[in-house]
Amino acid sequence: MQKSFTTRTVTAIVCGVIATAGFAASHGGGENKSVEARHAMMQMIAYHTGILGGIAKGEMDYDSAMVDAAAMNIASLAAMDRATLWIEGTEQGAAADSRAKPEIWSDPEGFGAAFEKLETAASALVGASDAAAVGAGMGDLGGACKACHETYRGPEN
Amino acid sequence: MQKSFTTRTVTAIVCGVIATAGFAASHGGGENKSVEARHAMMQMIAYHTGILGGIAKGEMDYDSAMVDAAAMNIASLAAMDRATLWIEGTEQGAAADSRAKPEIWSDPEGFGAAFEKLETAASALVGASDAAAVGAGMGDLGGACKACHETYRGPEN
Repeated sequence: MQKSFTTRTVTAIVCGVIATAGFAASHGGGENKSVEARHAMMQMIAYHTGILGGIAKGEMDYDSAMVDAAAMNIASLAAMDRATLWIEGTEQGAAADSRAKPEIWSDPEGFGAAFEKLETAASALVGASDAAAVGAGMGDLGGACKACHETYRGPEN
Repeated sequence: MQKSFTTRTVTAIVCGVIATAGFAASHGGGENKSVEARHAMMQMIAYHTGILGGIAKGEMDYDSAMVDAAAMNIASLAAMDRATLWIEGTEQGAAADSRAKPEIWSDPEGFGAAFEKLETAASALVGASDAAAVGAGMGDLGGACKACHETYRGPEN
């Protein structure tokens, strides 16, 4: 039976959109792709943290627009909905490349609180008016990352 | 001269946070890392678009929480501050792996409008109540991606 118009249209759109991103839309097999997606989130957080740290240390010129952008972007990333990213069955050992500890699923409130801590620390850096102010906020920012990793991230694979 | 307490603290925090992300905090050389970071953003958008497309096509069960999470996450990504991601001097040919066309910097209003189109299309999918409703919104979503790519993304490297 010929696929409906909607199915063919959606297929064409989705394939066209994601083809060059190398996303293999396997039948119902999205779990491992969730690991890749959350690692991408972490890479974006690390990138923006590096900008703030570079400015704090004087390795990059202080730039208020870059400070605000980096801080807001980290806060946005920390506030994202985790339902699509930490899918059941993707803990370390169950999904390739995953370092997710089972506590993520057994203690969702704690996991959520860790992200809120990151969001708060990042938001506090918006408007930091010079390198010293950025530096003053890095403690809470790095502390949020560290605390979450200690509890919810396993060893390197 | 010994580094100040602040510098040492910030260094320790930043290195500890980002070491396992493989982020090489080279002296002032963040430009190429911006390409990697925006590709991570695009990967996250593609991943979430794939979830919505999979649900629309019936390849994945309809799940309202997943639909809302995917739609909201795409909207959040589309709304991120681009100052840290599309840095001057990172167009295709100038930065490794970049496919960014110069129009991104010569037509920032147009580039911004393209992201607003994506944010609007994604936001419209929040609350889509069944697979058909998700399918109905995929046209605008895919159309936003396609339109931006046609104008601001160069050929594969």
